[in-house]
Amino acid sequence: MLLKREATIVGAIVASDSKDGKDVGDLIGLPQPLGVRAYTDADEALALKPDLVVMSIASYMDDMYEPLRRCIFAGSNVISLSEELLYSWHTDSKRTAELDTFAKEQGVRVLCTGHQDGYWISLVSVLMGTAFSIDAVHGRCSWNVDDFGAELAHDQQVGTTPEEFAAWSGAASNRPPTFGRTSLHALAAMAGLEIKDSTTTTRADVAATPVFCRALDREIPTGQVIGFTDIDEVTTTQGITLHLEMTGKVYAVGETDSNHWEVRGEPTVRIHSDDLATHYTTCGTLLNRIPQLLAAGPGYLTIDQLPQLRHQKTLG
Amino acid sequence: MLLKREATIVGAIVASDSKDGKDVGDLIGLPQPLGVRAYTDADEALALKPDLVVMSIASYMDDMYEPLRRCIFAGSNVISLSEELLYSWHTDSKRTAELDTFAKEQGVRVLCTGHQDGYWISLVSVLMGTAFSIDAVHGRCSWNVDDFGAELAHDQQVGTTPEEFAAWSGAASNRPPTFGRTSLHALAAMAGLEIKDSTTTTRADVAATPVFCRALDREIPTGQVIGFTDIDEVTTTQGITLHLEMTGKVYAVGETDSNHWEVRGEPTVRIHSDDLATHYTTCGTLLNRIPQLLAAGPGYLTIDQLPQLRHQKTLG
Repeated sequence: MLLKREATIVGAIVASDSKDGKDVGDLIGLPQPLGVRAYTDADEALALKPDLVVMSIASYMDDMYEPLRRCIFAGSNVISLSEELLYSWHTDSKRTAELDTFAKEQGVRVLCTGHQDGYWISLVSVLMGTAFSIDAVHGRCSWNVDDFGAELAHDQQVGTTPEEFAAWSGAASNRPPTFGRTSLHALAAMAGLEIKDSTTTTRADVAATPVFCRALDREIPTGQVIGFTDIDEVTTTQGITLHLEMTGKVYAVGETDSNHWEVRGEPTVRIHSDDLATHYTTCGTLLNRIPQLLAAGPGYLTIDQLPQLRHQKTLG
Repeated sequence: MLLKREATIVGAIVASDSKDGKDVGDLIGLPQPLGVRAYTDADEALALKPDLVVMSIASYMDDMYEPLRRCIFAGSNVISLSEELLYSWHTDSKRTAELDTFAKEQGVRVLCTGHQDGYWISLVSVLMGTAFSIDAVHGRCSWNVDDFGAELAHDQQVGTTPEEFAAWSGAASNRPPTFGRTSLHALAAMAGLEIKDSTTTTRADVAATPVFCRALDREIPTGQVIGFTDIDEVTTTQGITLHLEMTGKVYAVGETDSNHWEVRGEPTVRIHSDDLATHYTTCGTLLNRIPQLLAAGPGYLTIDQLPQLRHQKTLG
């Protein structure tokens, strides 16, 4: 996608030693080499002084802070798909403020985006703009565990018993913030709402009939866990409550990724999307945010600070 | 709605002599008078120097030009629901430029909005921002003739034969621009696309089984016209084509107002809304655009020049 938008790729940072030194074109399966290499040593790649680092390595501040810090101090802008850093002012205000200060000092921009930007935040905030008064906003989204392999299926507790799930869930109070929570925080910011309180509850999704899990290559019998649903709720000083139920589970035949949003008020209004290519919209949205990122002032930016998301033909 | 947002209403302009001089609160059915009156003489009302005129009188430039001109020269900002003036730079560039010049000279703002702003333009432009590449955008929207009374049912050719419809349709080449056309022009502007060409075709919607028309208080037999569909297509220099099929017909039991949008590209993405309270979202959107209108620079403004549509608790 970056090449199709005529980006000049100067290098890639890779984790595995087997890719170190390889041509980036070869690594991504292009018909010919790109003439630039992959580096396991991030500092060596950042010494190439890229204008922009596209970072898709981790979801949470714990894993993102140090890589972001290094890009910032190398003088590079960063766009990333990190879910927590989509809006981390409430979940980790200290390190968010540090990154913001570093970015301002270095004159670079850090922005996180992804599927959420369009489908859980920008579209929803516009929808809210068609209502005269709003009591609550309710979102319901789902993704298929089978799209993401065995490790995530285990993370998502697939194949455990309800008792095992309850034990895990009780012990999981130190889970990092859900994607739903940071998405609702970003929505609040875009909709001009001030956050009062945030809560998360989690319920198991249990097989009503046997479901075959491709990621684990086995059938999950009736009564066992096929995934779970995080229910996030954010209250605001404006009295509007924001809710998001996000389900990650093994799909039955015919189920597809979907987003349903209902703005309850005068009048109640709704939008739906189904049959979504979430992994593809994630990347499309990132590409479309790049020109806005490059035109913005320096700092840790959030999508509410940028112009309305729109399609772009070029990178800037 | 204006009163609930704490607007100070200074007067109303009415068409019928029977309302002239009456209290505005009495006219709109409030429990007590508002202490301000209705005027059939617009100049008398405009002499009250309102900050903002909310104008909901007509759809087309032919009927809007003179009232807008008078508000502008009275020194008032205007927000309106006129469908053509949502984006009239292509359908009537001369009078649009005149109004723009007048508004800039007088230091006031003119903006048109409505249901289209949210559901046919802002939401669609954001949706386009989630795709990597776009070939075409297809919208399909419908409204119920029975919601708008007998006059509109006749305008919409309800109860005519297909032969009568064909004769009307052939003679209707001097119809003013469809709502679809100006909506697609507004969408192009918001999505950063430059318009090459615009075409409209119209097809009759014919009763497949007998349908009762409440507006005309009679049954439309099988084979007769229950309304029609305008199909607008706009081509752009960027190669993206925009399509909108807008149906206004007598609904069968269970049909509701709906909007379906499909962005065809990499990937193809869709949003749907149904069960819409179109008349209500029209007004909600107007109220939510007022603070942005008041904060903008003077001139004839279009929604692509304003910040993203969002919910507002106050008027600014």
